[in-house]
Amino acid sequence: MSTTGLVAALDIGGTKTTAALVTASGEIVGRRTAPTPGRSGAAAVLDTAAGLVEKLRADAPGVVRALGVGSAGVIDSGSGLVLSATDVLTGWTGTDLRGDLARRLGVPVTVINDVHAHALGEARHGVAAGHDTVLYVAVGTGVGASFVLGDTVLTGAHSAAGHAGHQPSAYAGSLPCTCGRRGHLEAIAAGPALAAEYVRRTGRPVADLRAVAALAADGDKAARDVVRLGGTAIGSAVGGLVNVLDPAAVVVGGGVTGLGEPWWRALRDAVPAETLPALAGVPVLASTLGPDAPLLGAASLAWKVS
Amino acid sequence: MSTTGLVAALDIGGTKTTAALVTASGEIVGRRTAPTPGRSGAAAVLDTAAGLVEKLRADAPGVVRALGVGSAGVIDSGSGLVLSATDVLTGWTGTDLRGDLARRLGVPVTVINDVHAHALGEARHGVAAGHDTVLYVAVGTGVGASFVLGDTVLTGAHSAAGHAGHQPSAYAGSLPCTCGRRGHLEAIAAGPALAAEYVRRTGRPVADLRAVAALAADGDKAARDVVRLGGTAIGSAVGGLVNVLDPAAVVVGGGVTGLGEPWWRALRDAVPAETLPALAGVPVLASTLGPDAPLLGAASLAWKVS
Repeated sequence: MSTTGLVAALDIGGTKTTAALVTASGEIVGRRTAPTPGRSGAAAVLDTAAGLVEKLRADAPGVVRALGVGSAGVIDSGSGLVLSATDVLTGWTGTDLRGDLARRLGVPVTVINDVHAHALGEARHGVAAGHDTVLYVAVGTGVGASFVLGDTVLTGAHSAAGHAGHQPSAYAGSLPCTCGRRGHLEAIAAGPALAAEYVRRTGRPVADLRAVAALAADGDKAARDVVRLGGTAIGSAVGGLVNVLDPAAVVVGGGVTGLGEPWWRALRDAVPAETLPALAGVPVLASTLGPDAPLLGAASLAWKVS
Repeated sequence: MSTTGLVAALDIGGTKTTAALVTASGEIVGRRTAPTPGRSGAAAVLDTAAGLVEKLRADAPGVVRALGVGSAGVIDSGSGLVLSATDVLTGWTGTDLRGDLARRLGVPVTVINDVHAHALGEARHGVAAGHDTVLYVAVGTGVGASFVLGDTVLTGAHSAAGHAGHQPSAYAGSLPCTCGRRGHLEAIAAGPALAAEYVRRTGRPVADLRAVAALAADGDKAARDVVRLGGTAIGSAVGGLVNVLDPAAVVVGGGVTGLGEPWWRALRDAVPAETLPALAGVPVLASTLGPDAPLLGAASLAWKVS
C-alpha cells in the first residue's frame, strides 16, 4: 500500500448514490451525488455509480488507485457479491458488485455493507479515531450495528454480523419486527417504529417520526414519552452489548439521533444502567461525520487493496 | 512456534485447580488436580498451581516448553495481571499471574480468563473444531460467554468482554443481578437464579438447582416450567447475539446444561425464534470436552508463546 494519489469511494444507498475522491489521510477532495435508480434494476444502479466515479476521475486523471464501495444490503466482502437486499434496490441481490465495477473502472475494488463502512469511517477519521475497538450503532429506518476491531470490521460467517436491531428487547413486547420475528429492538426503536408507537398510544395519526418530534417539542406528553422510550430502548441494548463486546468506544448515528437531546439523554441514562461497573465509563459518542462516514470507511478499505 | 515437546496448562477455578501436559495436537498426556486454597490468599493458590505443574514436569523432564493458564476472574492477557475476582479467590485481584508463574517455573507463560480458555478449547479441539468463529456460552453459577475469532479470542478493551449474562432479558423482569443492575439474563437463567425462581413460584424451599431438576423429573409442573424458562431465556439471548456476531457455530456448556433434554429443547426452540432467516441454520452445539476444554484452550495459547 502506497499513500500517494487518491482512492475513490462509493456510498450506494436506497435513495441516493455518492462518489468521492479521498486522500490517504481521509480528506475528501471531490464529490458527486445522484439519485439511485433503485427501481430500475442493478445495471442502472451500477451505471449511475460508475458514471459518478468516471466524472470525478476525469478531473483527476491517472491518480485513482482503487475503489471502495459501501452499499445497502448484505454484502459478501470475500466474493464481492450482494447476498441480499430489500426491494428498495430491485434486483440488487446476486449482483457481482466488485467484479462489475472493477471491469467498468479498471481499478481494484473492495466492497462492504454501508453500515460497516460508516463504522469504519468514524473509527478511522471521525469521533472514534484513536479507539482500537468501536461499536457503531445506526438508528434510522432500521437499527443496525458494526463492530470495528483494529484494522478490520466484523462481517460475520454469513456476512450478516451487526443486526443489532434484531436482538430481543423488553421494550418491544411482542411487536412484529421487519425480519418476521417478534419483540426485537428494531420493532420499537427504529424511526417508523417510534411513529407507530405514538399512533398506538394516542390513536392520532402522524405522518412520520419528524411529526412526533415536532409534537414533543410542542410539549405533547405522549410524544415526549415515545422519544424517551426510543432512547431508553437503544441505550439498554447498547449497555448489554458493551458487556459482551467491551469496546473502547461506542458511536451512535442515523436519522433518529436527530430527535436531539431528550432522546440522547434517555440513551445516555440507559447505558450505564446496564453496564458492569468496570465498563460504566465507556464513552458513548454521537457520530460526527454524517454522510462522509461511509465514504471515508469505504476509502480506508480501498487503500488496503490499492 | 515448534510442535515438539509439550506445554503445560492450568485451570484455576474457585474450588479446584487442574494442571495438565498437552501435545501440540491437543492430547492430554498427564493431569493432576488439587483443591484451590481460595480462602488462603493468592500466594497459596499460586503455590498449589505451580506445585501441580512441577509434579507433572518431574515425570516429563525437559520437554515442557511453556505454560498456558485459564483462571477465574477478569484477567488482562496483555499485562498478565488479575484485574478483579470474586471473594471465592481471596486476594486474587492484583496478582501478577503471568510474572509470578514464569519466575516459579522458568517457562514462558500466557494467561486468560477461564471462560475464554474453555471457548478456545472447544473451538480448537472440541465440538466446534473447524469453525472459524465460535460463540461459546457458559451457563452455570453465572452466565458468561466468549467469542473466538480465528486464532484469537475477543477479550475486550478492559479485558471484560464476554459478560453475556449481563444483557437485559425480558424474562428477568426487574430481578436484581449479581452485578448490581436489574433485569439481566444471569438474574433469571443462571443455576442459583433458576432455583430462586422455583422458590418464588411455589413458596417451597429447594436446596439448589439439582433439587429443581429432580422435582422436574418427578413431574412437578412448576419445576418443569422453570427448567423450560431457563432454556428459553438463554436461547433468546443466544439468538440475539447470533444476529449481532454471526458466528459460524454456537457452543453451550456449563453446569446448567446438566438439566438435560427439556432445557436444551427450550433453548433450541428459542434460538431460531430470534435469528434472521439467513442465520436460522447456525449450529447450536453442546460442549463436549467438559473439564478438558479450558486446559486445551490454555494449552493452545501456550503453544503460541513457546
